[in-house]
Amino acid sequence: MKDLDNIPALMNELGARAKAAAAELAFAPPEARRRALEAAAEAVWARRAEIIAANGKDLEYGQDKGLSAAMMDRLMLNEARIQGIVEGLRAVAAQDDPVGAVIAEWDMPSGLHIQRVRTPLGVIGVIYESRPNVTADAGALCLKSGNAVILRGGSESFHSSTAIHACLVEGLQVAGLPEDAIQLVPTRDRAAVSALLTMTDYVDVIVPRGGKGLVGLVQREARVPVFAHLEGIVHIYIDRSADLDKTLKVVVNAKTRRPGICGAAECLLIHRDVVESIGKPVIEALVAAGVEVHADPALGELAGTQPASDEDWGREYLDMVIAAKPVDDIDAAIAHIRRYGSNHTDCILAEDKAAVERFFERLDSAILMHNASTQFADGGEFGMGAEIGIATGKMHARGPVGAEQLTSFKYLVSGNGTTRG
Amino acid sequence: MKDLDNIPALMNELGARAKAAAAELAFAPPEARRRALEAAAEAVWARRAEIIAANGKDLEYGQDKGLSAAMMDRLMLNEARIQGIVEGLRAVAAQDDPVGAVIAEWDMPSGLHIQRVRTPLGVIGVIYESRPNVTADAGALCLKSGNAVILRGGSESFHSSTAIHACLVEGLQVAGLPEDAIQLVPTRDRAAVSALLTMTDYVDVIVPRGGKGLVGLVQREARVPVFAHLEGIVHIYIDRSADLDKTLKVVVNAKTRRPGICGAAECLLIHRDVVESIGKPVIEALVAAGVEVHADPALGELAGTQPASDEDWGREYLDMVIAAKPVDDIDAAIAHIRRYGSNHTDCILAEDKAAVERFFERLDSAILMHNASTQFADGGEFGMGAEIGIATGKMHARGPVGAEQLTSFKYLVSGNGTTRG
Repeated sequence: MKDLDNIPALMNELGARAKAAAAELAFAPPEARRRALEAAAEAVWARRAEIIAANGKDLEYGQDKGLSAAMMDRLMLNEARIQGIVEGLRAVAAQDDPVGAVIAEWDMPSGLHIQRVRTPLGVIGVIYESRPNVTADAGALCLKSGNAVILRGGSESFHSSTAIHACLVEGLQVAGLPEDAIQLVPTRDRAAVSALLTMTDYVDVIVPRGGKGLVGLVQREARVPVFAHLEGIVHIYIDRSADLDKTLKVVVNAKTRRPGICGAAECLLIHRDVVESIGKPVIEALVAAGVEVHADPALGELAGTQPASDEDWGREYLDMVIAAKPVDDIDAAIAHIRRYGSNHTDCILAEDKAAVERFFERLDSAILMHNASTQFADGGEFGMGAEIGIATGKMHARGPVGAEQLTSFKYLVSGNGTTRG
Repeated sequence: MKDLDNIPALMNELGARAKAAAAELAFAPPEARRRALEAAAEAVWARRAEIIAANGKDLEYGQDKGLSAAMMDRLMLNEARIQGIVEGLRAVAAQDDPVGAVIAEWDMPSGLHIQRVRTPLGVIGVIYESRPNVTADAGALCLKSGNAVILRGGSESFHSSTAIHACLVEGLQVAGLPEDAIQLVPTRDRAAVSALLTMTDYVDVIVPRGGKGLVGLVQREARVPVFAHLEGIVHIYIDRSADLDKTLKVVVNAKTRRPGICGAAECLLIHRDVVESIGKPVIEALVAAGVEVHADPALGELAGTQPASDEDWGREYLDMVIAAKPVDDIDAAIAHIRRYGSNHTDCILAEDKAAVERFFERLDSAILMHNASTQFADGGEFGMGAEIGIATGKMHARGPVGAEQLTSFKYLVSGNGTTRG
């Protein structure tokens, strides 16, 4: 029986259990992990009425708390959304198993044969907000990669997450895997988050999923490595060599397809030589698509736009808003992005190969794009399957974080009585 | 003019300069980095008299401080050792360039072409003790991998390191690279170390090179990622299927070739079925080679050994001493290593493939060896060229840390006006 009032003790127990489960999981057969995810998918579907009932409690709580319509929508589960969760679990189950894969192998003149093989990281802490489906997505990716996970969902989705978590545990049981491989923090108490962030003995990495407030808090307070991005301040630079048609298509898609995701474009930098020929038609197309364009006065008279101020540079709108300004040349664009960007995703529209190379070489965003919509910044679109998020740090995992990025490696070295001279 | 008394301001200036240099280095041509290292090698050789004179001052200081003979030996430079530094610089110069290498590339059904390319990490802080050659080795590896580096040598080697550092800067000048790419902290004040460990705005990773005291301090105090190992508590398990001849050769080499390195064996676990047939001859051979064997009393009467106590398990002697004990089976050996090991390097001597697989699967040391001396735990012996150390963390770099391990990556994504549906 857990004492839900003594948070440090509770979290320590969760940590110790996760670590023990991780040690077992590290050599559990891939087939068992796959089976657990399939069984979990079956359980989610079989218990959908129960999950929807639990979600009803969360929706009531959310209404009492006065959540916004957008928040309520994120929180809400119906049969179609549960179907989506089931499909997500099955898709992760069907992915190639990353654990144990030989990343590289070679022979040395000494006679040694060296293999570098993929291993799980250990214990992953996932802290998220109101979307209850993250319980399934994150739990599945961590299990697929052989890691134990401690899930800490938003307090608004507490009942929904608990119901979905029960299905994941059912999957583990069916496959004969340790139940502690996927644990959910059983309290809404916020002290549990602080505890999770500092459990250096038990937690190998923290993945925060949510808005800037959550990610910033985690990055400030965590004493374990964090895979995350704080903001997606995505820039598109329109080079003097850009093609008008491609630019129109890409920019409108990059801003409007889903303006609220981290890969949505936030700022347009236009080479001064093509402000008239490309920049203005692009801005007209954005305005026509319903985008509020904050245009630098140096761009001249532009119907339907409003003037940009200093606060518009380096701003993540996550909305149908974009900033736009002219730049003298590609180096000015690069300098602007270095100063105001967030190393998430940045894009160049150009036909001149030398310009593309310069952009790719001189920027160090996790993802650099050429003539393609920044909305492709997504693990699925990279062919990685599901992702747990996008990371902008330089260590370990960068860009989309899928199952493979949740692994480490070890060296296996074989000799035949081989000694060193 | 730097104010050497205001350490926080001094270190901040070093950090800002390093970061600026790193931004330039990231796209400096490989040829320039190679040229800088070759020119540095030439400078070290040309200025060897100057370096030896500086080293003389350090040796005097060391004598006044009453350093041990071993410490004085580590500190001492002569023409042969300077020749070694020159060869080390040339070897790193000649290595393949890791920066810009395409690690993977693939096409997606959307039409996108995705490349994952290697990039520098940024700024690396290297903190080391009395060996002055580390100034050259670490500086070279960081530059090879396109990183700026802030070197902080031991106070005993201050003058030697300063003289060697001047040669590295000469190399940078010859190659037209920013001089701030390789900086040496220009003061012995220990506050500089604390500052370096917490400069999250400027430093991407810290590499401590030295004893347990230094590494432990760095791991406790650093607020940036650390690539290191605290201890090399290296175990060798002799399976019941082990071959006597191979075992004799490997164990003696693993302990005695150089007993003070982190890959030296520290504990022998012997399957109880082969204590008489293999264990005892191996222990006799160790004793004959001058090793002090701390033998568990359960091993029975063993001439020339002394009884092991509880303190012998999990102990890093770094000397001609080894602990030995019998185990019931391979799982008991694995359990012992999990409990007392340090995830550095562990070895199995066995002819039974199933035993090797079990050992490789159920342990998660950075390096696992089979029928080979643990003294091979070294970047050079892995074919990585020079190494800056061996890491036992699970994040990013693990095992020997060479130039390639000092890099990150970014994704370069090319389309042709490609939008997301």
